[in-house]
Formats: sequence, structure tokens, C-alpha cells
Amino acid sequence: MSGNTFGKIFKVTTFGESHGASLGGVIDGLPAGLDIDIEKIQKDLDRRKPSQKSPDGSVNKSVTQRNESDTIQILSGIFEGKSTGCPIGFVIPNSDAHSSDYSDIAEKFRPGHADYTFYEKYGIRDYRGGGRSSGRETACRVAGGAFAKILLEKLFPQFEITASTTEAAGIKAETFDKDEIEKNSLRCADKNAAKKMEERIEEIRSKGDSCGAIVECRIKGIKAGLGEPVFDKLDALLAQAMLSIGAIKGIEFGSGFESAGMLGSEWNDQMKKADSNGQVFKTNHAGGILGGMSNGNEIVFRVAIKPVPSISCEQNTIDKTGNECTMQIKGRHDICLAPRIIPVIEAMASIVLADLALQNLTSKIN
Amino acid sequence: MSGNTFGKIFKVTTFGESHGASLGGVIDGLPAGLDIDIEKIQKDLDRRKPSQKSPDGSVNKSVTQRNESDTIQILSGIFEGKSTGCPIGFVIPNSDAHSSDYSDIAEKFRPGHADYTFYEKYGIRDYRGGGRSSGRETACRVAGGAFAKILLEKLFPQFEITASTTEAAGIKAETFDKDEIEKNSLRCADKNAAKKMEERIEEIRSKGDSCGAIVECRIKGIKAGLGEPVFDKLDALLAQAMLSIGAIKGIEFGSGFESAGMLGSEWNDQMKKADSNGQVFKTNHAGGILGGMSNGNEIVFRVAIKPVPSISCEQNTIDKTGNECTMQIKGRHDICLAPRIIPVIEAMASIVLADLALQNLTSKIN
Amino acid sequence: MSGNTFGKIFKVTTFGESHGASLGGVIDGLPAGLDIDIEKIQKDLDRRKPSQKSPDGSVNKSVTQRNESDTIQILSGIFEGKSTGCPIGFVIPNSDAHSSDYSDIAEKFRPGHADYTFYEKYGIRDYRGGGRSSGRETACRVAGGAFAKILLEKLFPQFEITASTTEAAGIKAETFDKDEIEKNSLRCADKNAAKKMEERIEEIRSKGDSCGAIVECRIKGIKAGLGEPVFDKLDALLAQAMLSIGAIKGIEFGSGFESAGMLGSEWNDQMKKADSNGQVFKTNHAGGILGGMSNGNEIVFRVAIKPVPSISCEQNTIDKTGNECTMQIKGRHDICLAPRIIPVIEAMASIVLADLALQNLTSKIN
Amino acid sequence: MSGNTFGKIFKVTTFGESHGASLGGVIDGLPAGLDIDIEKIQKDLDRRKPSQKSPDGSVNKSVTQRNESDTIQILSGIFEGKSTGCPIGFVIPNSDAHSSDYSDIAEKFRPGHADYTFYEKYGIRDYRGGGRSSGRETACRVAGGAFAKILLEKLFPQFEITASTTEAAGIKAETFDKDEIEKNSLRCADKNAAKKMEERIEEIRSKGDSCGAIVECRIKGIKAGLGEPVFDKLDALLAQAMLSIGAIKGIEFGSGFESAGMLGSEWNDQMKKADSNGQVFKTNHAGGILGGMSNGNEIVFRVAIKPVPSISCEQNTIDKTGNECTMQIKGRHDICLAPRIIPVIEAMASIVLADLALQNLTSKIN
Repeated sequence: MSGNTFGKIFKVTTFGESHGASLGGVIDGLPAGLDIDIEKIQKDLDRRKPSQKSPDGSVNKSVTQRNESDTIQILSGIFEGKSTGCPIGFVIPNSDAHSSDYSDIAEKFRPGHADYTFYEKYGIRDYRGGGRSSGRETACRVAGGAFAKILLEKLFPQFEITASTTEAAGIKAETFDKDEIEKNSLRCADKNAAKKMEERIEEIRSKGDSCGAIVECRIKGIKAGLGEPVFDKLDALLAQAMLSIGAIKGIEFGSGFESAGMLGSEWNDQMKKADSNGQVFKTNHAGGILGGMSNGNEIVFRVAIKPVPSISCEQNTIDKTGNECTMQIKGRHDICLAPRIIPVIEAMASIVLADLALQNLTSKIN
Repeated sequence: MSGNTFGKIFKVTTFGESHGASLGGVIDGLPAGLDIDIEKIQKDLDRRKPSQKSPDGSVNKSVTQRNESDTIQILSGIFEGKSTGCPIGFVIPNSDAHSSDYSDIAEKFRPGHADYTFYEKYGIRDYRGGGRSSGRETACRVAGGAFAKILLEKLFPQFEITASTTEAAGIKAETFDKDEIEKNSLRCADKNAAKKMEERIEEIRSKGDSCGAIVECRIKGIKAGLGEPVFDKLDALLAQAMLSIGAIKGIEFGSGFESAGMLGSEWNDQMKKADSNGQVFKTNHAGGILGGMSNGNEIVFRVAIKPVPSISCEQNTIDKTGNECTMQIKGRHDICLAPRIIPVIEAMASIVLADLALQNLTSKIN
Repeated sequence: MSGNTFGKIFKVTTFGESHGASLGGVIDGLPAGLDIDIEKIQKDLDRRKPSQKSPDGSVNKSVTQRNESDTIQILSGIFEGKSTGCPIGFVIPNSDAHSSDYSDIAEKFRPGHADYTFYEKYGIRDYRGGGRSSGRETACRVAGGAFAKILLEKLFPQFEITASTTEAAGIKAETFDKDEIEKNSLRCADKNAAKKMEERIEEIRSKGDSCGAIVECRIKGIKAGLGEPVFDKLDALLAQAMLSIGAIKGIEFGSGFESAGMLGSEWNDQMKKADSNGQVFKTNHAGGILGGMSNGNEIVFRVAIKPVPSISCEQNTIDKTGNECTMQIKGRHDICLAPRIIPVIEAMASIVLADLALQNLTSKIN
Repeated sequence: MSGNTFGKIFKVTTFGESHGASLGGVIDGLPAGLDIDIEKIQKDLDRRKPSQKSPDGSVNKSVTQRNESDTIQILSGIFEGKSTGCPIGFVIPNSDAHSSDYSDIAEKFRPGHADYTFYEKYGIRDYRGGGRSSGRETACRVAGGAFAKILLEKLFPQFEITASTTEAAGIKAETFDKDEIEKNSLRCADKNAAKKMEERIEEIRSKGDSCGAIVECRIKGIKAGLGEPVFDKLDALLAQAMLSIGAIKGIEFGSGFESAGMLGSEWNDQMKKADSNGQVFKTNHAGGILGGMSNGNEIVFRVAIKPVPSISCEQNTIDKTGNECTMQIKGRHDICLAPRIIPVIEAMASIVLADLALQNLTSKIN
């Protein structure tokens, strides 16, 4: 495995397993001179951490009750409150790791999990809590993304990134009120839909099952020209970034899969004189990306999230020797990943943009 | 722009513009000792080349009538019919470049094209035929993919990759007969649907319009374990590879966006004793990928293709000075990209797999 | 700064400053299934750590008396004593950082140090103990090298790497007795020369001065063929690796700079039937590398080490505003880097070889 | 072999064998908007090409008489005389390839050449003229370097790079007159020494032998701060770049190997108020590099060049089956590489600097 680094100039490297001593990573390539507010970084981690409460203070029933503070310790690269240009090492210690919950899975492969593929690839696996393939790994991505956002906010004062749940447990959001997102346990921008999603998820939870979701991400304030054709296009790297998140099974930009049924005369975003924000497109079927580069419009993409694979119903599987058996997964698990994956999506998208923004500084010489 | 190389060990670098002297590239990292059949490579290029006939010998009306032989000249890396381990340089000369067709677009940005973003990023653009952002660039990807396939066929004797059009111009394929694919102008595995697509596309063409499509790709014979968590996962790199192709606006694996509405108990592919092909999954909602690694099952993904942006209707746009204007695009263009993008999809997927197959040789030491 | 990762498949990423909370890093790409003996890794670190005693138990006067245990804490990637294929995160906490010693250098640039260049590049620098440019950073390289050696010992049972001081303070070693190396404070293979070096260094130390050295590294047991032409040749990457170590100002392979005065008929290593070790060369002017690849012979290179720049004599310099001033450097410093740089040289060479050994697994398909 | 790309942002990829159809490569990451003078690029290639005349018009007896025009054909990336930001593909066709000269070496390994290592690594080799390991490969480096220099001249108006022969055939240059360099066949800055070198080389040539050399490279006008600690330091990458050139066996910066015998009080370059060129160092033992970054002083390094391995005396070797035999190398060969390797050294150094200059644009945010 040598795929634990993302980025070319702004680079995030991560390590750590669900039940190891600590998660952590290294952020390299952050320019010097940026003001670093560690509390703000911690806040990003808090949005992702397990066992978070619902905005109304009640237990959030869609997320795991594992109790981790996910406190980041920054070990280098910051001096007197500023980035120095040197690599930022950090750790996020594990504290509430109940290894005993996982003894059964040492011998059997959990359906829908990476157990089988890890074993096939490496011949060995840290089975405790999913080891490296656990969603806990994404805490480090959120840390990396927090630094990326500091850079993006400096480079693009209008920068704003907002992901929200547009579908969960089969229920679709129908309105978009940004202010609602952090007010419900699903991070859904439609208050009424959120309520229905919560009810449906509680029902699913009570049956020991889980469900999928769709999350939409919108990014404002990025100037035109980010993305490096022909292989490191903005959409290409966003797609890599998103599909590298465990539960994500698809991504679409702008009109996405609907484009298949459209005519060119419908799809092409007609252009107009720049408005006060420098915006030159009348519509946004392109999702803010043309030719693999940001076009100055809002960047819009949606990702498909599969149901949490850890469910408590009995499942058919095989053990390490290849024999068929059944298993029931215990432990504390999420029911729907949408609310906790949203900060991860925002983080990975920010990492992509930060890296491409730095690369873009070299695109022309005036 | 420093994004013209794809891969870490098996690396494909490409260059070339639509109306420049030549396209070309370098394939580095192909292991030594492989038998290289140049005719077979040329055949792959022929499947993508413009102005190809329909299988029945008639003019294929969904594709551009630009006349290019797309003949590959291999300049290095092959000796006495075998790969030597040295980089393979190749060129694909341009011959039928009508620069005169493109004079109007020097000053105006074509809606739906990369004209505006290239200009914003670089301050200069080779506007002839779209320059670097032309679909012609993908000829080099097909060349790279042809070498990747030679490697994959050696490593995985059961390897087979097949992409086909499952939707075009709003018409969906309903059956899958692999033998039909190369028998119709859409590369659709459903004979009847193909006929309807052709009719509908002819209608669209006659109005100067264009249409989108969906292509599905299925890959057999890949053993479990390819993919490098956590960022260079198989699905992550396939997503990067696909979204790096100009017209593709979305990708989904296995159950993809449908996963959002499924329960964990439906989605999780239950496991069983290995069958004669080593297959251990009862279903394939995962699309052959778990934890970012191939799981031995068929790898299945679908991509959304936007309508060809070059249409002959009048469009609203702006010129280089930012003033509003209208334009009509002339020249010879595709109506629906599906048939010609299929070899590109197969090529890029093969490049990803070849690179990950080589990386996988280092995953464990016995 | 985005240069804190070394390697393509076996990758070592490091972070940390002299007086920060902790040094650390990530080792990615180590194959799964290797037995990891953490005590052995710690022993490598002990060979580099400051304030180490002379082999006879006396104070080693050529090295700094800063008191650091350099204890490595491994945070991930090892399970039940074996590598899992997942990234290995580690930290080496700083404990004895006397920041007060360094207050003067906040405003002035120390001659021979990286103070000026860091300030010019980043506009900010962590001046405490040299920050990122401190030799302490190399502790992480030694950790990385320890893992590389585990891999190399598995792949090449005859693998053996030995660096020793061949010149220090102007005194040259004249004999080579490998068993002597760890018996004297200079890690010199010539007992008598070592004694003279020690005396001369004590003299230099008493005057507040420092001195340079030459270290030779010999590597046995590597099979022919490691190295990736034309840019990632074995000697090219060893040169990068060595020159990336702070104090090293030159490298030569085999006959090195003497080659300039030789004839082709003298230089060319004549070949012979393979001996029992598979050795086919009669001489070794090439230093074990031909065409950028190991040739099966002993790999031999020498590096030039500049005098430690921290000296207590008064020096002429400038301050941050550009005004001339003088300064005297206080604190605890090495006099001659040779003994402590030797484990770093062995580590970096091992990292290069481990990476190329893994890459070489993909060079041909049989 | 996947090592045919150099650089991270400004990237040069090369391909081609001595007796294949063509050499060539791709230059990626050159910023858009630079004026490209192709004649100037060709002139750089002419300085390296075989069979060049002595400056006085006579046959240059130190170089091979193979007759190649080394004409570069640029295939992409330039539009209306300017770089577009798109990759620059180029070819340099082979024309005077006498394959018949090399039939003997198909079965035997030439001492001092890469024949044996290529065969061991790949199990196959293009033996004609050394195949990929031929010095002809460096023509592409010179092409890449020519583009790098265009960028450097734009970024650093005072930029100047000059390599010259300081020792050849055992004779050392004692004076440095830059204007002499292009006036003698050795590219030596000492007129008298050059004459003696020429005589000595003619003597060596007449005996069918060859000789080594030392070349010094001086680079002016680079501002402080180029280089990416801790692994991609300026000296580290220059060392990689130089040692990746076939015949180079060592490199030293500034005082280099002499540093070993110096005291810190002698070595440390004392600092002073900036002069009119911004120069702040009184001496230059560091060779213009501190902490792995340019310090604004002249960058100075020397490389050791081994004797040309192709000599016509009878040599002892083995054949592919491992049996001992003798061989005599025929064909047209250089006697001393110094004059032709000088443009390659300048090119590779320029590539390193161009890449680091672009990376440096991201080092701080003001």
C-alpha cells in the first residue's frame, strides 16, 4: 500500500487504524505565513466525530455511539500562530477502542466490508474495528481539509463550501435552506425532509439495518482556471477524492447523469457579460467545470453513499479457510453515514482545490 | 499544465493538439518481455478514429466525418517484437486538419467547450479545433490502453473488458447481448434499442443538435486485491481516469446512485464458497470493488456522457473582450460521443488496472 | 515546502523541528507480512542519538551533549508483530529542548546555517535550534531506514550495509577492519587513525571550532538490476538521498573523482565467469553500479561532510534588517558529524534500495 | 523502467534508443506565455551533437564521428511563437545509425557499459549502439533544458549558466577565462590547458583508449530560496540530475570534498550587508546552497566524468551464457566526454532550477 498520500504540491499523508494507538498524518506544502487557528480546525473534527449530539442536544441516532473526542495534537509546522512552510505533523489518538467487540470478525469476512479484499491483498489484516479500512481514518482527512480551507479562504475571499444531505433512507430533500443544515441531525437543507429522514432512520435502526444517502456539495468563490488537463482535471481529482472515501459509490457533476437525456442545445450553458461577481454563465449544467477547469461558476457535485455495511441482522459469509458460515455484527455503528461524511466530503474537496490552486500559480508567466 | 501523465509505475504521458503537427505520447513502466502486436494496437485506434463506418458499411451518422487515419508510429521501446522495459514513444500524426473552419472561434468562446477556461487559465489558447481540449487527444489514451491490455492479458488470462452504450438520446438498452456491440453504430448491446437510438440521433443531427449517453463498462478476470488504499483505491483511480475524459460528467460503481435508496441488508453482497472461477459473492451491488480493492467479482461501472457541445444552432456567448455576441459552430462534429468514447473508456480503465496490477506486485512478501 | 517525502513505492515522509513537540513521520509502501522487531529499530536510533557515550563508556566529545532518548513510538501499521501493508505512523518526541539557548539567533542569521535561506524563502522561521533544518530531523530518516533494512534483509539474505569514517579533522584512515567501527567514537575502521582523529577533535573542540570528514559506505548482497533509468538510476537516487542530508557537500561512486585521471583501459571493470557469490567483475572502479543499475558487485560510495557550522568563535553576519553584526553561537553542538551521520547515511541508502527493490519487481514479466 | 520523467511541476519525459527510429520526449508544466525561439533550442542541441567540428573548423578528435543532425521537431504546445501551457512533444530522429557495427555485442557484455545490468534487469536488451543506455539519450535532455532556460531567463533576468572542463586526461585548467570556453574543442576556460588536453587526447585516441574529465558548472542570477527541504533540496536534486547522466561518477558543491579537511571557522561563509547584486556572503565555500536552498550566491558544482567505456583495445568479458571471452569494440566513439557532456550538464541543472523555481512560487502567501 503506497497510496496514503493525496496531492502534488499541497499533500496530505495519513496513517492509523481504528483500534491502533493513534491516527495521524502529515500536511506538506502549505505555504508559509498563514494564520492558523487550531480551535477552528478542532471544530471541523468535531463535526465528524462519533457520538455527536443532534443539534437539539438529543442523542443522534443515525451515528455510532463510540466515544472519541477526536482531539488533534499538532506536532510541527506552526510557529507563533503561523504556518512556517514546514510539514505539519499531527496525531488524533484513539481512546474508546473496544477491541473485545470485534473478536468474532478475526476469522470471518463481514459482507460489504473490506475484510476479504484486505486479506486477499496483504495476507494479514488488523481486524479490530476494520483496521485501516475503518471510517475513523477520515478524521485525518478532515484535519487536512481544515488546513486546505485556511489556504483557500486566503486565496479566494469569497470561498465557501457547503455539503448537505439531499436524500437519505429513500427520502429526498425538496427545498434548500442553507441555514437549516446544521440544525438537524441529517445535515439536510430541507427541514421537513430532515424530519422524515430521522423518523425513517430510527425505524431502520430499530430493525438492525442501515441505509444509504446522497450528498450534494456546492463550492462558491473559486476563480476560473483551476485544474490541470488532461489527467489532473478538477473534476477528475474531485472524483478520485470522493471515491477514495469508503462508502461513496458514485459522483456526478452539474447535470450529471441527467446529461445523458439532454440535447446539446439544452445542456450548453450560454454565456453573458460578467455580472458583479465575475459570473459569465446563464445556467450551470456544467457544475462549474469546463474542460476540467473551474469556470468561475458554482462548483456542484453529488455523491452516492451506500448503506453502512455493519448491520446486526444475520448474514451469509465465509471464513478465512473459505468455508461458508453466518455472522452477526455487534458493536456501535452508524445507521446512515450522511451527516458524518459531509465534513469529510468538504475536506477532500478542499484538499483538491488547495492543491490545484497552488499548481495554478505556475500556469502562466506574465 | 503539468497533468499530462497518468499512473505511478505504468505511466502514460500524452501531448498534442487537434490541429498541431502530431499527437503522441510516452508509455513508461511497461515490463520487459511482452509480445507486442502493433496491428492489434492499431485496431484499438481504429475503433476510436473519426469518420468510421457503421458496421454495415454505411456512413455512421453519429460521428464526425473528419478524415484521419490515426496511424500510430512507435518510435522506441520495442525490439524484435518484444517490450524491452524502455519507454515507448509514439506519434499519431494529424493529417486532415481544416484550420479554416475554425477562424471564427479565435475571438469567441464556444458554449459548453473549454475555450473560456483555457483562456482564463493560460491567457493564450490554440483555438484551432479546440487545441489541447479536443477529443482528438484521446487517441493517445487508446494507444496507452492498448499496451495496458497486453500487460493485463498476460497477468490475468481471463481478463476481458467490454464497454457498451446503455442509453443514448434518451433511449435505454433493455437487453445485453455482448455479440451485438460491434454490430451497430452505437456500440449498444441491445439490437432493438440501437436501432431506435440511430433513428433518434439522425433526427437530432438533422436539426443541428447533439445528445448525451450512458456507457457501462464491465471488466472480468481481475483477481482480488488491486487498488491502493486509502487514496489510490481502484474506484478512486477509475473515477479520476473517467472524469479526465472530456465529456464525462459522472460515474457510478455497481448499484451506484441506487445505493442511496437501499438498506444495508439489501446492499451487502453475501458471500459463498468459491465457485470454479474463484468467485465468492452471491450478488454484485459493490460493482466488484470493496474497500477500494477489486474483490474478484466483475468490475462494473457506468459513466454519464454529456451532449456534444459543438452544435450548429445559434448560441449566446461572449468574446475575448467580454462583450456579448452570438455564434454558430461550423465544421464536422460528432452528434453522440458514445460509440467513439467506448474505446477511450476501455483504454483508461485498462491503464488504471495495469498500473495497480504492477503496484500490487509489491503488496506482500511471502 | 512539499519535499518531505522520499520514494515512489516505499515512501518515507517526515516532519518535525528541533524544538517542537515531536518529530515523526509515515512509512508507506512497506509490504505486508514482514516481522518487525521494534527493539532493533530503536537500536538504529540509538546509534544516531545525541549525547551517546564512546564505546569505552567515556563522554564522546565529538558529539552534542543534548540529552534526548530518541524513543520511537509506532502508532500504526504493525499488527501482532508483523507489517500489515498499511502506513506506519511514528513519533519521536523531543524532550531536552533548551529554547533559552537560542534567543539570540531569532534576529541574526548564523553563518553556515540555513537561517538566511529559510527566512528568504518563507518569510518566517522557527529559529529555535534551527527548526526544521536541525540535524534532529534525521532521526526520522533513521527510523525509515530501519524499516527499509528489514525489507532488504528479507529480499537479499546477504544484504549488509556498513558506513565508516575514512577521514576526519584532516586525518585519513589507512586500514579497514570492519570490527573496529563500533569500537571507537568516530566509527572509523582504522583503530590508530581513530585515536588520532579523537585527539585532533578534542583540540578543535577546546578552541570552540569544528571539523569536516569523509564517510565511506559499502553495501553487499544486492542483486544486479536495481535502478530505474534514465532519471531514477541507483546512483542518481543515492546522490539525491545523500545530498539531502544537511552537512553533505559531495558524493562519489567507486573510483569517483579519480576517474577523471584514468584511462578507459584502466577504468573498465573486466568481467569473468561468476564466482560462488555470482560476482562477475574483476575490479570495482564502477562502485557496483553500471548504467545506473546495481551490477551485483559491492556498492561503494563516499560522501564529503562539511564542518559543523555551529562554532563558538565570534562570526560576522547580518540581522533580519540586513545590518551587519557579529554573533557567538552558544548551546550544545557536535564537533564532527561523522559518527552520528553514519547511521543516517546507512538509513538513506537503505531507503533508496528498498524503494528500487520494490520497483524492480515490476521490471519484467516472465 | 518507470524512471523516464524528471521533475514535479516542470517535467521532462524522454524516450528513444541509439538505433531506434527516433528519440523524443515531452515537456510538461512550462508556463504559458513564454516566447519560444526554436532556433535557439536547436543551437543548444548543436552544441551536444556528435561529429561537431572544433571551433577552428578542424575535426574535433575527442568526439564521435557519427553523423547526426540532431534536428528537433516540435509537435505541440507552441502556438504563434508562444508556449500555451500545453505539453510540448518533440522528436529528434536518428539518421546515421550503423547497426552493422554492433552485431558482435549482441552476445557479449561490453565492460564499463550497461549491457550486463540491462540484461540482468530486463532479460532482453536492444544492443544496437547501447540502446536506451546510449549517450544519444541525452539529446532529449538538452531539448528539455533549452525550454527550462527560457523560463529561467524570464524569471531571473541575470540568469547565466556556464559549465567548462577543468580537468581532462589528467591535465588541469589553472585559469578561468569564460570567453575561451567556446573557442577550443574541450570547452575549457584555460586556453593553454586546453591545448595540452587536446594533445594528450590525440595521443590517447591513437592508442584506442579514452580518458576521463572534470567539469565545473557555475550558475548566476538565481535568487535565494530555491529548493524544497528536506528531500528535494536544490543540491539533492542537482546531484540526482547529474548522476543520472551516464558517465558521471561524482559531484561536489562549493568546497566539496575539501570541506572534509577544513575547520568550521574556515568553512562558514561570513555574511555582510547586501551589495548591489543583493549578495550577502563574503566567500562561497557553500557553493551557493545553504540548507538545501539557493542562497543568492553563485551556484558552483563539479562533476567527475569517467573515461568513455568504448575503447578499441581487447577486453575480457563474458557472454550471455556466462562464459568468458574477449572482445574488441568497433564503431565511432568519443574519446573524452567533457565537451559534449557540458551542454547536458547545463541542461539538467536548468531543468532542476526551472522546476524548483515554479515550486517556489507556492512557498509563501503574502
